[in-house]
Amino acid sequence: MIAVLKQSATPEQIAYLTRWLEGMGLEIHTYHGNNTTVLGLTGDTGSVDMELLGSLEFVDVVKRVSEPFKMANRKFHPNDTIVEIGNVKIGGGHFAVIAGPCSVESEEQIIDVATQVKAGGADILRGGAFKPRTSPYVFQGLKEDGIRLLLEAKKATSLPIITEIMNISTLDLFEDVDIIQVGARNMQNYDLLKELGKTGKCILLKRGFSNTLQELLMSTEYIMREGNENVILCERGIRTFESYTRNTLDLSAVPALHELSHLPVVVDPSHATGKARMVPPMAAAAAASGADGLMIEVHNNPSCALCDGAQSITPAQFAELNKRIQAVRKAIE
Amino acid sequence: MIAVLKQSATPEQIAYLTRWLEGMGLEIHTYHGNNTTVLGLTGDTGSVDMELLGSLEFVDVVKRVSEPFKMANRKFHPNDTIVEIGNVKIGGGHFAVIAGPCSVESEEQIIDVATQVKAGGADILRGGAFKPRTSPYVFQGLKEDGIRLLLEAKKATSLPIITEIMNISTLDLFEDVDIIQVGARNMQNYDLLKELGKTGKCILLKRGFSNTLQELLMSTEYIMREGNENVILCERGIRTFESYTRNTLDLSAVPALHELSHLPVVVDPSHATGKARMVPPMAAAAAASGADGLMIEVHNNPSCALCDGAQSITPAQFAELNKRIQAVRKAIE
Amino acid sequence: MIAVLKQSATPEQIAYLTRWLEGMGLEIHTYHGNNTTVLGLTGDTGSVDMELLGSLEFVDVVKRVSEPFKMANRKFHPNDTIVEIGNVKIGGGHFAVIAGPCSVESEEQIIDVATQVKAGGADILRGGAFKPRTSPYVFQGLKEDGIRLLLEAKKATSLPIITEIMNISTLDLFEDVDIIQVGARNMQNYDLLKELGKTGKCILLKRGFSNTLQELLMSTEYIMREGNENVILCERGIRTFESYTRNTLDLSAVPALHELSHLPVVVDPSHATGKARMVPPMAAAAAASGADGLMIEVHNNPSCALCDGAQSITPAQFAELNKRIQAVRKAIE
Amino acid sequence: MIAVLKQSATPEQIAYLTRWLEGMGLEIHTYHGNNTTVLGLTGDTGSVDMELLGSLEFVDVVKRVSEPFKMANRKFHPNDTIVEIGNVKIGGGHFAVIAGPCSVESEEQIIDVATQVKAGGADILRGGAFKPRTSPYVFQGLKEDGIRLLLEAKKATSLPIITEIMNISTLDLFEDVDIIQVGARNMQNYDLLKELGKTGKCILLKRGFSNTLQELLMSTEYIMREGNENVILCERGIRTFESYTRNTLDLSAVPALHELSHLPVVVDPSHATGKARMVPPMAAAAAASGADGLMIEVHNNPSCALCDGAQSITPAQFAELNKRIQAVRKAIE
Repeated sequence: MIAVLKQSATPEQIAYLTRWLEGMGLEIHTYHGNNTTVLGLTGDTGSVDMELLGSLEFVDVVKRVSEPFKMANRKFHPNDTIVEIGNVKIGGGHFAVIAGPCSVESEEQIIDVATQVKAGGADILRGGAFKPRTSPYVFQGLKEDGIRLLLEAKKATSLPIITEIMNISTLDLFEDVDIIQVGARNMQNYDLLKELGKTGKCILLKRGFSNTLQELLMSTEYIMREGNENVILCERGIRTFESYTRNTLDLSAVPALHELSHLPVVVDPSHATGKARMVPPMAAAAAASGADGLMIEVHNNPSCALCDGAQSITPAQFAELNKRIQAVRKAIE
Repeated sequence: MIAVLKQSATPEQIAYLTRWLEGMGLEIHTYHGNNTTVLGLTGDTGSVDMELLGSLEFVDVVKRVSEPFKMANRKFHPNDTIVEIGNVKIGGGHFAVIAGPCSVESEEQIIDVATQVKAGGADILRGGAFKPRTSPYVFQGLKEDGIRLLLEAKKATSLPIITEIMNISTLDLFEDVDIIQVGARNMQNYDLLKELGKTGKCILLKRGFSNTLQELLMSTEYIMREGNENVILCERGIRTFESYTRNTLDLSAVPALHELSHLPVVVDPSHATGKARMVPPMAAAAAASGADGLMIEVHNNPSCALCDGAQSITPAQFAELNKRIQAVRKAIE
Repeated sequence: MIAVLKQSATPEQIAYLTRWLEGMGLEIHTYHGNNTTVLGLTGDTGSVDMELLGSLEFVDVVKRVSEPFKMANRKFHPNDTIVEIGNVKIGGGHFAVIAGPCSVESEEQIIDVATQVKAGGADILRGGAFKPRTSPYVFQGLKEDGIRLLLEAKKATSLPIITEIMNISTLDLFEDVDIIQVGARNMQNYDLLKELGKTGKCILLKRGFSNTLQELLMSTEYIMREGNENVILCERGIRTFESYTRNTLDLSAVPALHELSHLPVVVDPSHATGKARMVPPMAAAAAASGADGLMIEVHNNPSCALCDGAQSITPAQFAELNKRIQAVRKAIE
Repeated sequence: MIAVLKQSATPEQIAYLTRWLEGMGLEIHTYHGNNTTVLGLTGDTGSVDMELLGSLEFVDVVKRVSEPFKMANRKFHPNDTIVEIGNVKIGGGHFAVIAGPCSVESEEQIIDVATQVKAGGADILRGGAFKPRTSPYVFQGLKEDGIRLLLEAKKATSLPIITEIMNISTLDLFEDVDIIQVGARNMQNYDLLKELGKTGKCILLKRGFSNTLQELLMSTEYIMREGNENVILCERGIRTFESYTRNTLDLSAVPALHELSHLPVVVDPSHATGKARMVPPMAAAAAASGADGLMIEVHNNPSCALCDGAQSITPAQFAELNKRIQAVRKAIE
């Protein structure tokens, strides 16, 4: 860690700061330029409060030389982590496709979609039971019933399942869920992350709408330091000024996260774009960028013609998309 | 609510959609232009899922004519809400100043700061006990002990107190806390908001880093519809591309929230700017914009010269700032 | 165009507004809901000043049903535009690769790179002569000499060339340049765009750092309505809060622009990411998303080992990348 | 300037870089930590291309210790610059109010508004003649005629005038204009800035929609280094995710720019908010934040009741606003 001091820093302030940092067990290397002083800090700098240090009147800038995340950091774990869910592997060259409806609506619906996405090549079934919604006045998911129906679909198809948690008090309901998803709005709900870190469950952590990759990895750290290293990262679009798409899918996050971390990275083009017809090209682009998996919304409710137009694609489109993905993956090998 | 359909919408699709919406108890008024069709929906449109509607292939745009928030909406509650905490009132012409340290550190510290901010004109004492931090490796607050010490300071000064909650499972600890703060990162932690809505406590809800005012008011709705109308809104800076300040204080949020809602609005210039020397001018600007209160970080720890430079101002600077605020408030009357 | 009026609109205001709009030659269809009035405007709404209309006190929202861009609009020109530069075609299934150094530095450099990128599969040579730089104190390009050297490289390799214009007063220098590039910072320099519209030159227009796709297409309109339809759109990354990459490459812009417009779309992963090692995966992703071309920085200066690490890739890496791009394009067919 | 090298930097690379930097006339101070190397550069670092340096594979981060702007920098010019336009002064404790219509529409209009804003306390008259518009299909201003009418209004009221330039080829028309405005979209039109730097004219430079304060000051540098130090900075709102206001007025830019630069700072709340009723509170807030002046849109066209609702306030509201501003300025003294 490097702290660049302002020209106005007095010798007393520098001495004071040095003693304070040494008191934290750090070693301080001082470099005096002609109109600036730089302190190089070595030792366990992870516990230094950069924000406090940077806010001192005589400190110009504080810069970590090493990233503040440790357990998720590729530097300390050069090999790709391969997360295993039953027979499915994600990461380290293993590619997995998660597919299913946005919300679980009924037993018929979820079993029908599950059967069809399995036939179309899906490895894991998704379906929302607890739905975080901006408005309290709209459908919030089937909750307990939704999870129960997902488990029925799992039994019927033997696909592992993933669904979102919003509140640690409901953890018991997730006992037979294979992957617990933490949504974008809860990416910095640190108490939830800590509790999930105490379970042995595989966690899929979605990037927040306006969060940086470093913030995503710091949130991962809350899970991993409790002992749970089964974490999958998920890029699902960030908020930008563009309004044609719901969010902006940041595919450079894929190679960037692979540089920074050893954890697998999956991409959700359905929520990112919000438009069914943009899902196939963006899914292909995600595969080409090196993603370890995809998360695709698939819906098929013949009794509801309305839903055809939503961000969900049909099982037939999904099977088609999946073939193209396999071809793209071969092309970039 | 208005739904503008695409030129490509077929009569069957329009008929289907109309029946579906009528099935939700809405009345549909159809207007056919020369190359577009507009549906005007009246009735209880709050429960219409705009996102779903807007995602239909043949729908071009969906626009609410009435805002989706109800209980926080000034249209249905034209008079300003005045929140009362003991003898302190906020809103409807009543201005309150909240002051205190970022974190509670020790009994001496909190009682000393409390005594001094009271002398300097503060109405309410702030102090963090549970601290949401981006990194799990830095200080997370004194937790239970922090709240206990705040209660000591309350007893010593008879100032009402405000502190942040991060997890509903700690609610019992907040029994004697006067205002419960929900931080920016938890603004969309809907399960937390719902539970706080079931208490009779006054809630101060901070706007998320990248959230719009409408999203803030929708989150307020999660609290209010459970029966708790004691909500104070707080502007604390939003994320922008400017890096000179920690965040960008959005003071136009003050007149905007006053137009949209009847709830009081306070401004936190300390977290927004992250620089002590910018707190006085931005506090004055907040008062001039019509804010109902301020939230100011004040610190005085003679044993820690380091802290002088942080975003916290000293008690002497606070007393000075407070005088200027009173003068600005008179000037805009 | 739809104008939704506020509940507070008086009959006099509505009548006044209707007369005013009719005076502009529009036909007005009025729809009265139970607490709102909607005006449907038909006719030549392109000349209606939406900003003025929307700013009226009694107007709630104004929404175009048809997009405000006309000549770039796919609705009025369903087939893909194919831009031809000599023997090179871009768009409508034709894919072109533009490659070359960020700046032209010397005759040896540009001819060497040109020869090598041609061998590696490039269709067009790029090289900066006029360089827009945030600081006036750094290298601003070789200017006239840069263009002269580019023309030498064109003669030596017979590759068509592209270079950036910053100021219409230099237009004469671009007589033998094949494609004139307008950079992100000048995307809304409307007087420059108009003048370029009067030339017959092919124009490559880069999206501004914080501009929407609609704004990009409106700027295109400034060029096209002067009679020049040879326009290529370029996605080169937008400003977001992520700092690991220089900008955030918005690949969903590719299918989005293809929906909205008939013009070809190329992607510049070099400027977007700012990191050489991220160029190959993002180039592959761009091809998978359906882009009509790529713009890649390639540098090879054996006398300057420093430059190896910049955002430019080497000719050898470029040849490799190009093979992979061809494979990806086959995979998505 | 500090360059932190990556752990992977080889001694050869470090030696190479050091020689290269020394070749530019810089002095290099090397500091070796236990797993990092830091180079401290002193001398004329303004000409070092930070972007190039930072893009080297073995460089982790480059940080300027001194800001890259020089002539606008308060460090080298501690006293406030006072810009004088006739008898009007801006900066260094002098406050000036610029007022007038968005566009010049007719002789009657501009003279009427000019007379009324003068009576209401305005120091300078504004009025747009060349209007940068997103769409080429809407009104682009009266151009030459607009400037001629502004000059009539100047003669009639003896108020100095300000109007916007879009293209250096029109400079002759601005001979009798007192302040030339550069709009947000042209903030990085460097060739325009350079040419304006060669005139002796006072320039008001507006911050771009998504530009940082440092970028604003770097653009200022393009003007000042050509010899023109009569520059006024203008905050006019930045693009954020909030859509209730047209842009987000960043008032912390006022104290921030005062710290960084000696140039005067004016605030335009009319364009920032886009809503007439928000102009008075935001103008008061701007004054309270320490601004050196305001730029307010005022319109009075009895023949056009429509315009009452726009972002422009009436002359009567302007006179009222002005009184309040004076009171706020006294309050913060």
